[in-house]
Amino acid sequence: MVTSIATVSLSGGLTEKLQACAKAGFDGVEVMDADLTVAYESPEEIRALCHRLGLKIDMLQPLRDAEGVDEATFADNLRRAREKFRTMNRLGTDLLLVCSNAGTATVDDDAVVTSQLGQLADAAAEFGVRIAYEALAWGRFVNDYRHAWRLVEAADRPNLGTCLDSFHILSRGHDPAGIEEIDGEKIFFLQLADAPQLEMDLLSWSRHHRLFPGEGAFDLTGFLKHVLRAGYRGPLSLEVFNDTFRQTDVYRTAAHAQRALIWLADQAGAEEHSRHGKLPAGQPPQGFDFVEIAGADLSEVDQLMNQLGFTFRGRHRRKPVRLWSLGEARIILNEQRKRETPQLAALGLEVAHSGRAADRAQSLGAAPVFRNTSTGEFDLRGVAAPDGTEIFWNGHGEPIRWIGEFEGGMEPGEQHGGIDHVNLSYPWQHFDEAVLFATSALGLEPAASAEVPGPLGLVRSQVMHTADRKVRVPLNLAPPTAPVPPRHVALQCADIITTAARARSRGLRFLPVPDNYYDDLTARLPLDPDFVSTLKELDLLYDRDGAGDFIHFYTPTIGEFFFEIVERRGDYAGYGAPNAPVRLAAQRALTATQSR
Amino acid sequence: MVTSIATVSLSGGLTEKLQACAKAGFDGVEVMDADLTVAYESPEEIRALCHRLGLKIDMLQPLRDAEGVDEATFADNLRRAREKFRTMNRLGTDLLLVCSNAGTATVDDDAVVTSQLGQLADAAAEFGVRIAYEALAWGRFVNDYRHAWRLVEAADRPNLGTCLDSFHILSRGHDPAGIEEIDGEKIFFLQLADAPQLEMDLLSWSRHHRLFPGEGAFDLTGFLKHVLRAGYRGPLSLEVFNDTFRQTDVYRTAAHAQRALIWLADQAGAEEHSRHGKLPAGQPPQGFDFVEIAGADLSEVDQLMNQLGFTFRGRHRRKPVRLWSLGEARIILNEQRKRETPQLAALGLEVAHSGRAADRAQSLGAAPVFRNTSTGEFDLRGVAAPDGTEIFWNGHGEPIRWIGEFEGGMEPGEQHGGIDHVNLSYPWQHFDEAVLFATSALGLEPAASAEVPGPLGLVRSQVMHTADRKVRVPLNLAPPTAPVPPRHVALQCADIITTAARARSRGLRFLPVPDNYYDDLTARLPLDPDFVSTLKELDLLYDRDGAGDFIHFYTPTIGEFFFEIVERRGDYAGYGAPNAPVRLAAQRALTATQSR
Repeated sequence: MVTSIATVSLSGGLTEKLQACAKAGFDGVEVMDADLTVAYESPEEIRALCHRLGLKIDMLQPLRDAEGVDEATFADNLRRAREKFRTMNRLGTDLLLVCSNAGTATVDDDAVVTSQLGQLADAAAEFGVRIAYEALAWGRFVNDYRHAWRLVEAADRPNLGTCLDSFHILSRGHDPAGIEEIDGEKIFFLQLADAPQLEMDLLSWSRHHRLFPGEGAFDLTGFLKHVLRAGYRGPLSLEVFNDTFRQTDVYRTAAHAQRALIWLADQAGAEEHSRHGKLPAGQPPQGFDFVEIAGADLSEVDQLMNQLGFTFRGRHRRKPVRLWSLGEARIILNEQRKRETPQLAALGLEVAHSGRAADRAQSLGAAPVFRNTSTGEFDLRGVAAPDGTEIFWNGHGEPIRWIGEFEGGMEPGEQHGGIDHVNLSYPWQHFDEAVLFATSALGLEPAASAEVPGPLGLVRSQVMHTADRKVRVPLNLAPPTAPVPPRHVALQCADIITTAARARSRGLRFLPVPDNYYDDLTARLPLDPDFVSTLKELDLLYDRDGAGDFIHFYTPTIGEFFFEIVERRGDYAGYGAPNAPVRLAAQRALTATQSR
Repeated sequence: MVTSIATVSLSGGLTEKLQACAKAGFDGVEVMDADLTVAYESPEEIRALCHRLGLKIDMLQPLRDAEGVDEATFADNLRRAREKFRTMNRLGTDLLLVCSNAGTATVDDDAVVTSQLGQLADAAAEFGVRIAYEALAWGRFVNDYRHAWRLVEAADRPNLGTCLDSFHILSRGHDPAGIEEIDGEKIFFLQLADAPQLEMDLLSWSRHHRLFPGEGAFDLTGFLKHVLRAGYRGPLSLEVFNDTFRQTDVYRTAAHAQRALIWLADQAGAEEHSRHGKLPAGQPPQGFDFVEIAGADLSEVDQLMNQLGFTFRGRHRRKPVRLWSLGEARIILNEQRKRETPQLAALGLEVAHSGRAADRAQSLGAAPVFRNTSTGEFDLRGVAAPDGTEIFWNGHGEPIRWIGEFEGGMEPGEQHGGIDHVNLSYPWQHFDEAVLFATSALGLEPAASAEVPGPLGLVRSQVMHTADRKVRVPLNLAPPTAPVPPRHVALQCADIITTAARARSRGLRFLPVPDNYYDDLTARLPLDPDFVSTLKELDLLYDRDGAGDFIHFYTPTIGEFFFEIVERRGDYAGYGAPNAPVRLAAQRALTATQSR
């Protein structure tokens, strides 16, 4: 089983798209006719480039509004088609997608359509071309895959088959089980697209909002299983019209697309037919191993951790790297990289089988990262996430062997603490990519998403977590015109009042909370005035749900990073979302002040 | 009649919003409670700032889920409300918006709601506060403005009235005529928002997609007339939840908002109650007077116009400004400005009454532009559009007096030609602002909009034109991550084959069109092969509709500007939209080549 993608799913010019598809590991492409039309390269050049890149041109697409028309129109449509057959011969592809007539169909008569499809196939045969006929969801008279298949069957030509597109079938709520009744040999092509459940007209939904598999509301795994049971063994191809993917970097989006397809094939059990083989089993993390902050000068972060009560655990024996811990939370400061600005650069996760986790991520297209290790040092395996953040895996429950490489530090006492959650931020256009990577490669699951009003627009927030919520990674997506917000690590402590008071006595000034916040809090919730006074004095924020309470504060931002300190009381399950607007406004106000 | 705006409609912190509202000319604001909560400034500081800025705080909003609840909950709600009354006393506002209960309502009993609204009003009276009760479109039991009014009437308190919100009424398709049956004195507040017609749940539609008046599908003029007939004389206030306006520059968006409100008041005949008075009548342009290209060095543009067959009409007698013409098309090259890059900087329009056009635009908040004129020179009046493009007006049908200021040029012969259309481009987030300005200040009307696939995403295209289509201004909106495309002027010629051949013989290399385009054209349309050969030889593009043909070509881009040359045959009404993707791809391919 091979992978393919329609060029319309990607940004850039045709040759850039082809280069990116090859680099991402696709076996083939569907060339969108419109992409060829605007390219300076001739069909022969495109053919030769694809040959060099090892890409098969699986199909040219689409020919529209060909059938179900009066005789004069059909004669001209045959002329149109022959011109495209000539182009296909030059391009070196033998399959043409014909979509059911959505515009000019005048005849609601299966006999006419059957006859015209047959004539089209016969004309195609003269050029060695095959036709894949597809029911568009908004086709005028043919808009059900079962109807398209009946017409193909009736026309009965060896070079005429059907093309199935998950969007056109699932968007109309048609039962995909009927696919199993189609002769697998006559399914000439398979196009896969997911989509969110939206209430809008089919055409707009299809042309703007399709997603890669696993990112929407469709059951693509079930869909693909039906297609496999029918006996289809052709390419799994993505045709994803999406306003965002049309804009994002073509190499990155192609890798994202391939990841989605490999994931889907694995879910559907198509791996036995696939050159990619079975994916190693997913490894949901069982805890955070460490977080790494990288930057040219991290002395401010050292000071911050000192103020927060972290224990200094030593310097790496060979590298400009330091380790701090607070209970179970381990923070590595890495000054090896010459990045200007302190930032959250790597994440260590504890899993049952670290090797399998790394193998799985690499099978999903993530590049392994090089780690500067020497003899006797522990070699953690890791990969770069699509945005460059490094992910490392370590065995859960084993002694953390890499700690032995740090020297000259102190032993931690019986310190309570741990990483509550790690908040990663991205530009808006990387939302689906980030979620899919977290799902497929990191073994996290999406919780409900929310929108947080900030001074520069709505920030989209998507929590990713494990089923047991031991590992929680909220993703924040900045609105298009706003800078990407800083990332942060939230640390659990047993007694936030004490922790906050101690940090303050050590000179730490938290993110200041407006007095108005406490007036509003007092109005919203019937709290003990003394308790509110304590919160106000220490710049602490408060939230509660039915199960418990949440008290937290934020440190100042250093570079593109800050800490949050949280205390969860009872079974509070959230992240203090009602307080996020306060943080966003305060951080911006302070940035504006500092930049004056 | 005074203007107001809810602070949630704008980006930034509360004090920035207030500054921007004052600068845009608003008389008052509705302070969103959440904006106050995240502000460092105390209510007293906000009050004092508003006083200095001449802004009245018309209302604090909202108090949610107060009524229709059990006794225990209501007791706590009264406590909540009293805290907010205290804040209002500090803030110096006496009106609180209470939205109908959307979440916690348990009692579908008008008697209970009436009683609780009465108790709330009595509690408010102790603080000198008035309550405006509003039916949310998604209120659990109260979601119709007529129902809210019946409850207010039944509660019968002097400090209890209703608030009308056009979104909540029109989104549900409720007939606004019933507003006239409400006592105008008891309409305590009026919130205005437009919205596009979308099929989605009411809450998402309301929270993300509201628009300023005149930008959506609602009949706000008719709505406002009903409210005026009811006798309402309070503020016209905008409450526009919109993801884009939350991001755009607060000063610019506040001016945009005020423009929409003045336009609406004028449309609805509210001007007699308004300190803004009646707007001067709109002046739909009757032709283009000129287009001005500005830049530090425009010699390349001179050469281009020479190649295109323009006549050099002379240098300005005093300024580094040159004039060229091609038939009725006049292009001014202005090297007074020290902008680096050649760009389309100003547009001259011919109207019946130039003074009225300028007065109207200024009444709509556009700043007049200073023109460097001296004695004896013609003083064109003009304003800056929101994006800085200058718009000048001249009397139509009169001799063009400013031409006399140019010396040393040639007299044009009997030359055919004129400006076919002027294409302006903007970043995506300025779509509504650009359309509203063109509608309200320039007297243009929107045609249907389209989306053009480009290599960096979908470009949104919105044609603005006069009813007679003599003046056509397509607006192109770049996708969020892409650069704003260059602007262009399209020139009409009588015989494009001759024009193109002559320009080529003068050394002009047009934007090269891919050979594949002509293969596709041959497939799409049954054209004479000789004709297609001619098109191909000269890099000409072709389109047709039911009424005629369109042949055109593009010059290379100079800075942020280029020309298009078009020939319209018959009554072709479009702009060659099917060819726009070819242009976008070719321009990007050339930019990429040049930047290597």
